[in-house]
Amino acid sequence: MTENGKILAERILSGDRMAVAKAISRIEDEADNYQRLLDLIYYAVGKAYRIGITGPPGSGKSTLTNYLAKLLRSEEKKVAIIAVDPTSPFTGGAILGDRFRMHELTMDTGVFIRSMATRGSLGGLAAKALEVADILDAAGYAYIIFETVGVGQVELDIAEAADTTLVMVVPEGGDIIQGLKAGLMEIGDLFVVNKSDRPGAHQMQRDLEYVLHLRESAVEWHPKVLLTVAHKNQNIDKVRYEISVHKRFLEEKNRLQGKRNKRLRRRVEMLVRSEMENSFWNEERLNKLATYLQKDHKKRSPYRLAQEMLEELLKRF
Amino acid sequence: MTENGKILAERILSGDRMAVAKAISRIEDEADNYQRLLDLIYYAVGKAYRIGITGPPGSGKSTLTNYLAKLLRSEEKKVAIIAVDPTSPFTGGAILGDRFRMHELTMDTGVFIRSMATRGSLGGLAAKALEVADILDAAGYAYIIFETVGVGQVELDIAEAADTTLVMVVPEGGDIIQGLKAGLMEIGDLFVVNKSDRPGAHQMQRDLEYVLHLRESAVEWHPKVLLTVAHKNQNIDKVRYEISVHKRFLEEKNRLQGKRNKRLRRRVEMLVRSEMENSFWNEERLNKLATYLQKDHKKRSPYRLAQEMLEELLKRF
Repeated sequence: MTENGKILAERILSGDRMAVAKAISRIEDEADNYQRLLDLIYYAVGKAYRIGITGPPGSGKSTLTNYLAKLLRSEEKKVAIIAVDPTSPFTGGAILGDRFRMHELTMDTGVFIRSMATRGSLGGLAAKALEVADILDAAGYAYIIFETVGVGQVELDIAEAADTTLVMVVPEGGDIIQGLKAGLMEIGDLFVVNKSDRPGAHQMQRDLEYVLHLRESAVEWHPKVLLTVAHKNQNIDKVRYEISVHKRFLEEKNRLQGKRNKRLRRRVEMLVRSEMENSFWNEERLNKLATYLQKDHKKRSPYRLAQEMLEELLKRF
Repeated sequence: MTENGKILAERILSGDRMAVAKAISRIEDEADNYQRLLDLIYYAVGKAYRIGITGPPGSGKSTLTNYLAKLLRSEEKKVAIIAVDPTSPFTGGAILGDRFRMHELTMDTGVFIRSMATRGSLGGLAAKALEVADILDAAGYAYIIFETVGVGQVELDIAEAADTTLVMVVPEGGDIIQGLKAGLMEIGDLFVVNKSDRPGAHQMQRDLEYVLHLRESAVEWHPKVLLTVAHKNQNIDKVRYEISVHKRFLEEKNRLQGKRNKRLRRRVEMLVRSEMENSFWNEERLNKLATYLQKDHKKRSPYRLAQEMLEELLKRF
């Protein structure tokens, strides 16, 4: 990292939007030494409160995020929104439509909005979203909202990285089953039945409360199920209030620190994994694998090949 | 591996159902040396044709799988069904209901049915499903059907491991958007609009064909979109026929081998990754990480910690 990196880090710490945008691009492009930049700003990370908002497409996440961000802005807090879409490039346009609704917010210099889509492997997307959050955290954004599409591993990873996770559903039945299936019930700290002016909203609320009740004995936190109509800005203030209740709950008994320690552990594990993999697959080993795929795979199972390739190395661990 | 392992391997290769069940339990429990067992049977792997069937809950996957398996049985082929449910233990009961519909099949000794649910980490589930498939392949099952719930990373991993992947939807609109979002459009070799006696089926078929058409220029294979009513056994013969058409397509120009090579590459990479991680996190390093989480994380970023822990090691790579 040149002097350039240090200057960029200082500009980020002073809250310079251009510097933040530049740093995010470096992360997305995996530019040389971008981790060094993260290292330089890391001491200032940890002040932001991180909120995850997840739910199926069409449940109104962007609209709710929009009004929630406005509320937080009215408290004079800087707000960042990271919209993560693990959609393939083929269908990557979809989320852009949602962004238009945020037009008003984009005029506000106290708000930073960034969409992140997958480029190639899904594996790195959640990790990158967390690195982007660190930049925004260091730049003084008091609230960082992750908005994710729904039900995959990327979303679960991001939910684990949020302090409060809000799960959205709509009154129509299918979503709840989807949500249950994908483990969303476990990750939600707060549930919202949006579009609650449509039939079935109260039934959905009762169903959710019932299912949440089943798991209650094991946990200290009892998630609320709220009814909202996001596009009419109805009950978003209640959402904001319940987030603050959960925040206070976490701040008691060192729970927030515990949650963040877990997050940190996962970060270190992820970094170690990707560094080891990058180092392992050098030219010699890639050639060996290519030869195996070409003609040797009838002689040895993948288990034996992996073992052979690792044998010498693992002794040095 | 004791003599026991060799005997078990021989029994598997002779098609002994009890031995197959035992081997699968070893894989699920990660019993000592289960990889050695996979190594012993590996030379006999590769004869089975692997079919992935995926779609949202309630789209009729089990019912279609049921009739498809019967059709394949009528051709005197042994059939195995692996139902993979990446549901959390909390909601793990759901898929069992579906299994009841397969009662008739379970009476047939030429059919092997196994449900696999996540136990702890999702990461290992897809890998284990593929290992189970290898056992069944070596035991002489000519068709292996993976049935998966839908839209997560586990399902995508399994789809990559199938020779032909069939994506199911129902006429009601939401599913297609879900599917698009999760990248199901890219992984499908064949699409089925099930419950096509309900309104909107033809529209859904046209919509799917249109979206598939958009990507067509880039690919050699043009997926069909079929209409079925699985619970009335309608058009399952067409599904079976289109699978055979896709199979023939793959068998031309070495495509099947290419696909399987890619699968093998991923297997080796996965094995290397998990072995390295297991070896890396020895007691000393776990202690270092614990200390960091307890009190040192304000001094160093996770990037620096990971780098420090890896520094000496990576030199030896």
